[in-house]
Amino acid sequence: MSELVFRDARAGDLGAIVAMLADDDLGRGREDPASLAEYSLVFGQIEGDARNRIIVAEIEGKLVGCLQLTFIRGLSRKGALRGLIEGVRVAASARGRGIGEKLVGYAIEESRRMGCALVQLTSDKRRARAHEFYKRLGFAASHEGFKLEL
Amino acid sequence: MSELVFRDARAGDLGAIVAMLADDDLGRGREDPASLAEYSLVFGQIEGDARNRIIVAEIEGKLVGCLQLTFIRGLSRKGALRGLIEGVRVAASARGRGIGEKLVGYAIEESRRMGCALVQLTSDKRRARAHEFYKRLGFAASHEGFKLEL
Repeated sequence: MSELVFRDARAGDLGAIVAMLADDDLGRGREDPASLAEYSLVFGQIEGDARNRIIVAEIEGKLVGCLQLTFIRGLSRKGALRGLIEGVRVAASARGRGIGEKLVGYAIEESRRMGCALVQLTSDKRRARAHEFYKRLGFAASHEGFKLEL
Repeated sequence: MSELVFRDARAGDLGAIVAMLADDDLGRGREDPASLAEYSLVFGQIEGDARNRIIVAEIEGKLVGCLQLTFIRGLSRKGALRGLIEGVRVAASARGRGIGEKLVGYAIEESRRMGCALVQLTSDKRRARAHEFYKRLGFAASHEGFKLEL
């Protein structure tokens, strides 16, 4: 495999990122790749915030994966910093090559480097294969994940 | 019941907050109320960050509950803002009076006011009663919650 690079997203990546977010059984109905201006506005708020990062995986200049990694300081667990992972995607053309594992592994290492005491994420109960994937990476499925749409 | 007030935590609340975090079957082994200086240092990083709030419930000047509410901007769901709730506690002496419900309800309303598209939280699978509580508040137990301790 050619070299896999991880880096923070840039504005020019946005089209490819939104396409990946949308190219997903559950994401399809929730995203709108045609409204890139809306995503750009939001990206402007995220960019430059060291505690809220969009990280992409790239091979030979082509984006093959993305996730969001947010660092949250709290009082619980003796004032622990935690890393929260959201929106993990691997491009359809690049699946089955271990890219997701390396991408999440990168997010774990970044969390460790920042001094996080834990990394957490939730995964829709319909994504059974993803759950096996996270268990292989060392995550414990110890919690119920609750969502309330407003 | 005397008037229940919700407000952001102040440094002077810290002892009572840490006591509530520790007075919990799962929190007991994770907190250290004797090390208040450590929590104070962390509180200094949280205080004044409008996107990462420690909210307390107070009755006649006495703290009876707390939670953390973090607002996270992301690209997924058309650039949605989401509210993340962590560390919900009601003081042992104040339980069974609907304070937890009003406190979480306040966090939901604050999330709505900020423009959040959803509110989310995870709850340890051993907290069966808490799960019923969140379902009554309208949350769907739609996700698996994964944690990796570093």
